[in-house]
Amino acid sequence: MSAATLSSRITAPVPAIDAALASCIDRAAMAENLRDAIRYAVLGGGKRLRPLLAWHCAAAFGGDGAASLPAGVAVELIHAFSLVHDDLPAMDDDDMRRGRPTLHIHAGEAMAILAGDAMTVLAYQALEDVADAGLRASLTGELSRGTLAMITGQVYDTLGGVPASSRGESADRERLDLIHHNKTGALIRASCRMGAMLGGAGDAALRAVTTYAEAVGLMFQIVDDILDVTQEAAHLGKASGKDVAAGKLTFPGVLGLDASRRAVGEQRERAVEAAASLGERAGALVEIAEYMAVRTK
Amino acid sequence: MSAATLSSRITAPVPAIDAALASCIDRAAMAENLRDAIRYAVLGGGKRLRPLLAWHCAAAFGGDGAASLPAGVAVELIHAFSLVHDDLPAMDDDDMRRGRPTLHIHAGEAMAILAGDAMTVLAYQALEDVADAGLRASLTGELSRGTLAMITGQVYDTLGGVPASSRGESADRERLDLIHHNKTGALIRASCRMGAMLGGAGDAALRAVTTYAEAVGLMFQIVDDILDVTQEAAHLGKASGKDVAAGKLTFPGVLGLDASRRAVGEQRERAVEAAASLGERAGALVEIAEYMAVRTK
Repeated sequence: MSAATLSSRITAPVPAIDAALASCIDRAAMAENLRDAIRYAVLGGGKRLRPLLAWHCAAAFGGDGAASLPAGVAVELIHAFSLVHDDLPAMDDDDMRRGRPTLHIHAGEAMAILAGDAMTVLAYQALEDVADAGLRASLTGELSRGTLAMITGQVYDTLGGVPASSRGESADRERLDLIHHNKTGALIRASCRMGAMLGGAGDAALRAVTTYAEAVGLMFQIVDDILDVTQEAAHLGKASGKDVAAGKLTFPGVLGLDASRRAVGEQRERAVEAAASLGERAGALVEIAEYMAVRTK
Repeated sequence: MSAATLSSRITAPVPAIDAALASCIDRAAMAENLRDAIRYAVLGGGKRLRPLLAWHCAAAFGGDGAASLPAGVAVELIHAFSLVHDDLPAMDDDDMRRGRPTLHIHAGEAMAILAGDAMTVLAYQALEDVADAGLRASLTGELSRGTLAMITGQVYDTLGGVPASSRGESADRERLDLIHHNKTGALIRASCRMGAMLGGAGDAALRAVTTYAEAVGLMFQIVDDILDVTQEAAHLGKASGKDVAAGKLTFPGVLGLDASRRAVGEQRERAVEAAASLGERAGALVEIAEYMAVRTK
């Protein structure tokens, strides 16, 4: 059932997602060199995992997956802005991303800072396409909370400040969970929830989607950490081994590789169970969870 | 009528504005060290010009000025984020702001980048306090357009890319107007319009408010440029003479000091006339325009 690539059933919406992203960037009133920088950062590849999650969460409720596009565009722009700023010299100082020079290498540091800033605003503009003002307001709130949590996770990861929650052997694991619950989990959670909201999910279904999203988000980060220590940079399209070199807390570092792989299996089960509770239409969500557990890049 | 300080009638809302800013920052779920950095950047002084404009534009329509607070908080957070990012080493590289070390000197460059990012999100969260979903959506759109134009102005000012609009002697003046229409004008415009919308302004009144805001915004930048060449850094609380040193287009540089001062007078007249058209309740807006023309810091 699981495979190291996503089936075309899952990835079929990617062209529609890319077109919606390009449209959002191209319609906005802004400087043309700024627009070029944003296009470079956003349209230069990427798996579109978050918009795909939004799409298939919307479709799980019988709606047209395309209804999710405002959310998908918004979360992808937030994700892309975070990569641009995280890559800056004062942050992770990465020169390569998705197999190409990072934006500050390509267009300069000042432009990378300003482009990231503008991408955040574009994310909110993307939600203006939602006609229902009440729903739009809910989505805006969801996007804000997810983004603020993502930034909080980045602060924890690079600058510290993780609140002490317990003592003893488990402390590192708790800190690690808290970092990644925020750093990667929050935006994946927002992607799934916003997609489900646009698909017409009720409260109970939204709770199941949230459980699914939290499992997928945690799994995503554990796999990322495993790949960082087991894969070559050329395969990933970005530097590998950087987390360990930077002294960051990682799942393999705290749990060891075997326990990290077991943790992936646990989260996969949790995600599949939550998706199954949504019924037949959520088959795509099951496949995404299976893929996330075994992806190699 | 005009004075080099604002009367207490105008500044009376500042404590309420500061309290609303603090409340917005303190209520949000985020890392505590990130919150500290944002408090340092936002609550460490500042004239609160944009929230005051929002307040008095709301009050001009007979409503309670306090109705403007979600807008005032939002625009002040956007303004403060832009200062934090503009001060970064890769941008203007300023060490001092409002008489204190800039945020990246105080808390490090990575924190300054992330705090600026988070402040943008907080601005949108501030608008969640507006109960009417339709009005909230309009305000969100206004904030996005104003912020994107502000970033565009910053790109034009520091990285170029200003579209060519004509040839000959007037070209510099046209470029200068376009830079500042975006860089400072757009957010002042959004402040006034959002305040007026929260005060219940109709379409015709909103057009007059927009004219007022555009005149005040342009006047603000011309005066800023004049102060940059005529005042000492100790008086301004930030570096002076930097625009000329950086080779930036400035009003005194393009027009000369005398013509710049005449341009201030023209915009003051335009602003006062637009405010007067709104009736007696807009007296505060007249006073603000008079002050903006003669301020010395």
